[in-house]
Amino acid sequence: MAASRERIREVVDRYVGLVASGTAAEIVDLYAEGATVEDPVGSDVLKTRESITAFYSALEGLEQRTRLLAVRIAGGEAAFHFEVQTVADGVTYTLAPFDVMTFDDDGRITSMRAYWGDDDMTIG
Amino acid sequence: MAASRERIREVVDRYVGLVASGTAAEIVDLYAEGATVEDPVGSDVLKTRESITAFYSALEGLEQRTRLLAVRIAGGEAAFHFEVQTVADGVTYTLAPFDVMTFDDDGRITSMRAYWGDDDMTIG
Repeated sequence: MAASRERIREVVDRYVGLVASGTAAEIVDLYAEGATVEDPVGSDVLKTRESITAFYSALEGLEQRTRLLAVRIAGGEAAFHFEVQTVADGVTYTLAPFDVMTFDDDGRITSMRAYWGDDDMTIG
Repeated sequence: MAASRERIREVVDRYVGLVASGTAAEIVDLYAEGATVEDPVGSDVLKTRESITAFYSALEGLEQRTRLLAVRIAGGEAAFHFEVQTVADGVTYTLAPFDVMTFDDDGRITSMRAYWGDDDMTIG
């Protein structure tokens, strides 16, 4: 049976929180074995645990804030809009991607695809 | 070559406008031959021109307003958040789905998947 809406919502909330302040290992724990990551959409699809861990490790040293702006759950999938603010040298970089995730029956993420482009970044 | 960001943005704007005030035929004209529609995600995928036309025909008689809230374009695909308000008997029903669309090289929609659930509808 597909994961419940409540379970999927929980995982999305946890994901958004961990992008701000979690370790790569904590984030990767949300993913199922064999999961894929395409961030941004159109880039190479990450298909191994090692490559996904490396991807999130790049965030670990950064000062980041995140907030979930809106989420829609349907058919055991989620689409959500969230904002990531990264502060470096007193400059704030803001990006608000749309992520689409699929889940297994236990609510582990089986795929993540992030929609954003360089043009969507604001600096202030 | 994949459709440009500008072209995709144009089609998304046109789609959102036509959902409010267009005919089913005008909306279906935005779709490529062989396109699919899954609205909401998890429901039966519409795979024929006839079934997609019938789906949008159901909107034709309604008093609707739409507005695009946010759009992200990446890898020749679009994800966007838009609001649909339907007024019936003095009551306003508001739904703000996340739609994901893929496009062919000419910017015709090859697939549309809409993320929303009954819980996302507000009545006022």
